[in-house]
Amino acid sequence: MTDKLLFTPGPLTTSETVKRAMLHDAGSRDRDFLRVVREIRERLLEIGGAAPGGGYECVLMQGSGTFAIESVISSAIPRGGRLLVLVNGAYGRRIAQMARVHAIDVETIETPEHRKIDPRAVADRLARAPAISHLAVIHCETTTGILNPIEEIGTIAAQAGAAYIVDAMSSFGAIPIDLAGTHADFLISSANKCIEGVPGFAFVLARRAPLLAAQGQARTLSLDLYAQWAGLENDGQFRFTPPTHALLAFRQALAELDAEGGVADRAQRYRRNHQALATGMAQLGFAAYLVPEDQSYIITTYRYPDDPRFRFEEFYTRLSDAGFVIYPGKLGQEACFRIGNIGRIDVNDIHALVSAIRELTPTLAGRG
Amino acid sequence: MTDKLLFTPGPLTTSETVKRAMLHDAGSRDRDFLRVVREIRERLLEIGGAAPGGGYECVLMQGSGTFAIESVISSAIPRGGRLLVLVNGAYGRRIAQMARVHAIDVETIETPEHRKIDPRAVADRLARAPAISHLAVIHCETTTGILNPIEEIGTIAAQAGAAYIVDAMSSFGAIPIDLAGTHADFLISSANKCIEGVPGFAFVLARRAPLLAAQGQARTLSLDLYAQWAGLENDGQFRFTPPTHALLAFRQALAELDAEGGVADRAQRYRRNHQALATGMAQLGFAAYLVPEDQSYIITTYRYPDDPRFRFEEFYTRLSDAGFVIYPGKLGQEACFRIGNIGRIDVNDIHALVSAIRELTPTLAGRG
Repeated sequence: MTDKLLFTPGPLTTSETVKRAMLHDAGSRDRDFLRVVREIRERLLEIGGAAPGGGYECVLMQGSGTFAIESVISSAIPRGGRLLVLVNGAYGRRIAQMARVHAIDVETIETPEHRKIDPRAVADRLARAPAISHLAVIHCETTTGILNPIEEIGTIAAQAGAAYIVDAMSSFGAIPIDLAGTHADFLISSANKCIEGVPGFAFVLARRAPLLAAQGQARTLSLDLYAQWAGLENDGQFRFTPPTHALLAFRQALAELDAEGGVADRAQRYRRNHQALATGMAQLGFAAYLVPEDQSYIITTYRYPDDPRFRFEEFYTRLSDAGFVIYPGKLGQEACFRIGNIGRIDVNDIHALVSAIRELTPTLAGRG
Repeated sequence: MTDKLLFTPGPLTTSETVKRAMLHDAGSRDRDFLRVVREIRERLLEIGGAAPGGGYECVLMQGSGTFAIESVISSAIPRGGRLLVLVNGAYGRRIAQMARVHAIDVETIETPEHRKIDPRAVADRLARAPAISHLAVIHCETTTGILNPIEEIGTIAAQAGAAYIVDAMSSFGAIPIDLAGTHADFLISSANKCIEGVPGFAFVLARRAPLLAAQGQARTLSLDLYAQWAGLENDGQFRFTPPTHALLAFRQALAELDAEGGVADRAQRYRRNHQALATGMAQLGFAAYLVPEDQSYIITTYRYPDDPRFRFEEFYTRLSDAGFVIYPGKLGQEACFRIGNIGRIDVNDIHALVSAIRELTPTLAGRG
């Protein structure tokens, strides 16, 4: 049985060799496994452009990406701190919601979902609200696929003296990111995104000073970012049982990222995937939700076709039956669906997907 | 390369077929995967003796077992509630610590680590402290391997009207547990314990009424037990990315539990493992920390031998090099180590371990 191809924001299609790395049971405290954990933490920092001893640290956290974001939000912001969240999609809203759950003082800048966040609006707000201690933004808002300007916003945060939290869930590994260049104090991503591992844990790349400042501030036990880091530093072990198989898979995924030529070459593959998708879908008459210049090469949102016979559930199910899993929309107002082009897929897979869509939507062909 | 055998409390040695179930990438929202999630939730309730519609629910939670316990502690206890934790090891202490992190009113009954919790002490405390709304206990305290009397304590909790939280992390799947018979309102275990799956998620079996009462009470977003359940009920999906591969492995593990004859027959294998270990280690002169009548057939704590040349680190490393991973101790005062006999291992594996230990400790032979 061949697996369906996953055109989603993750979990993604991974390589056979990444999955086969899970055919081993490792002791979570055993020397060989601890070496795997150490290698992963070092390599993630290198991908972020951080040299060993260069003032950045890597913390691995069990659970989904949201767990790691909550570990940052609920650990890094002290009592008396104030968080500004830049919102142009569901993931920004989720961070604001997290802050409220933890009774953290929070405000937002709300930007329409089809628009990038405007760095000038951020600068204005920070100038008018000096109590803001922390700023959070989503790099690639998976809600739409829009790409926010994290470097420009980071420069503004640094100038204002606000700590800077970047949710790079869908972008890390796909888009070159230099930690120092973005001024990120905390950058979060997940194992099952563009490093092309399997789900089970996420990771935080943190500037050392604000990470150390989080000691004793956590509002939970499991998601205590500082304690998790201190545990990993102290004896190399996770405080609580790690997903050993997912970590073995991730080491293999990192090796395959290197073999592909690193982030720059992976970005080229994803760009080719995206271009093939954009061209093919346009030929079928599907309209993208975003203008091309705001669109990432990671995931694309398409409006439902202007055809009263179109039923997304049927469209989704028939594509799934044909071996292609796409993703529903997440926009409040617009009837949309999403197609991701990350993971272990190439342009031939994209062509196959577009062909399958063509067969399902004959009446749409020729429009647009 | 053959994996080392894991004589730990988990992650454990799993079957080849359980691991091979992970050679597939599933879409986390795709129909086929949602069926797997539903089957797992139903089967776990059946193992707990709960009939469909019988007033119990199953919630799966990403992360380690501790994450699921924290989801219960931080969701189920209302503001104004008061928790009594029965402590005779590190895992009981951890629950009390969790409560303190969440500013939950908490008290403990501290029992020496080599002693079972005394139900009469619990009844006395509940009679004297009527403000106690919730009671938490560890079934098999992995710190030592002691087995606490959860049925007797549950009867007392029910009589006192206190909600009852049972950490059955290391026992569920190994020891027959009837949810109704124990009076458990919340019972927690993990994928990588005696069901013999891989790590990545844990689960909570909850009585429906107190689960519903947890709505809006959670002190976190990620670990919100009610919201996690409501999401699974609503559309069958996890709220946040699930460890898809670990779930595929778990379905296979559940099938293999059935094939073995269910919990009763698995218990027999673990009993045989434990008996072989107890006999073999006694012959080598190692003294168990617990008296036999308090000892579970899950994990056993041994005192360091009375030999000044014994170095645990060297003992551990040489056993590991020989392919046998044991576990360090976790007792404050006593110099001990632990040997688990759960997971996909049988008496031949135990004999092989004992032989390897014999070779490392020739001077101990004949003692005891």
